[in-house]
Amino acid sequence: MKAGAVELGHASKVTQRGVNRGMSILDLFLRIIAIIATLGSAIAMGTTNETLPFFTQFVRFRAKYSDLPTFTFFVVANAIVSAYLVLSLGMSIFHIMRSRAQARLLMYTIFWEVAMMALLTAGASASAAIVYLAHKGNTKTNWFPICQQYDSFCHRTSGSLVGSFIGIIFFILLVLLSALALSRR
Amino acid sequence: MKAGAVELGHASKVTQRGVNRGMSILDLFLRIIAIIATLGSAIAMGTTNETLPFFTQFVRFRAKYSDLPTFTFFVVANAIVSAYLVLSLGMSIFHIMRSRAQARLLMYTIFWEVAMMALLTAGASASAAIVYLAHKGNTKTNWFPICQQYDSFCHRTSGSLVGSFIGIIFFILLVLLSALALSRR
Repeated sequence: MKAGAVELGHASKVTQRGVNRGMSILDLFLRIIAIIATLGSAIAMGTTNETLPFFTQFVRFRAKYSDLPTFTFFVVANAIVSAYLVLSLGMSIFHIMRSRAQARLLMYTIFWEVAMMALLTAGASASAAIVYLAHKGNTKTNWFPICQQYDSFCHRTSGSLVGSFIGIIFFILLVLLSALALSRR
Repeated sequence: MKAGAVELGHASKVTQRGVNRGMSILDLFLRIIAIIATLGSAIAMGTTNETLPFFTQFVRFRAKYSDLPTFTFFVVANAIVSAYLVLSLGMSIFHIMRSRAQARLLMYTIFWEVAMMALLTAGASASAAIVYLAHKGNTKTNWFPICQQYDSFCHRTSGSLVGSFIGIIFFILLVLLSALALSRR
């Protein structure tokens, strides 16, 4: 009877270890997708560049992402976040190998995850505000919609926001996963 | 010897309960400050309104926060977040009364805290991008700095961002506090 209970305890421990490892693998998987999303966003925005086919003697109409400081911030924020994610892969692999997560490490992870999410959200929403302005303009402030001229520029910058917003969703999931690992200890 | 150990265990349990209660009180305190910050931001932005002293026969120069959709989003985001914080006070008080926090409740808290922080960050940074544009303008896109005319409008909108950014910092602390409570269970 006692041996059975011990065996049962052992079996449940093995199951729990399996679930922990599964969560760690999911964590690694989420991180890899988030890297692709944020790095893709940074590259898509960073290579945006449109030269209009017409020009005057003195002026060549050219739009680059760096003409708008907000877009530069977007590229920097996405680059920092993807660099953080690449570095955090090591920690994720460490968690897969050691099935029992350490509380202190998880606390650090949650802090950095939340901070990086804030940075990513800041870059994405600031750029979204500018992209919206470029599309719609604003009559009250006399800011004209530049998308009428720079069509491809606008498409490219709008598209590059998508990866960043996907990244934000993945960060929320990563924080929850770390919190779940903390609660299962 | 055994009685001593039991007593020691009891004493450590009492200390632990005290620390848990202290953390819950800190949580309540952070929430109250965050409510003041975000509600203050929403009200400061929502009441921004400047009418210039000169006008033509047909046009009266007037700037309201709602002239810029991003500022409307800012007000809505701050209002939602402060409403959430007011509702969450109940949960915080519940945690103070019951010294041992429940894992499931803490997980929900962390999820909502992170989501609300993302909303707050989105509103604050989108508005910051527009405020920056209003101050500096952008020569490449021919967006002129409106702050040259609407000076008080600009000061007010810039100032109202502060509360939101303070709120973001408090949300990071709240998430950490919930994670700490989760790890101490």
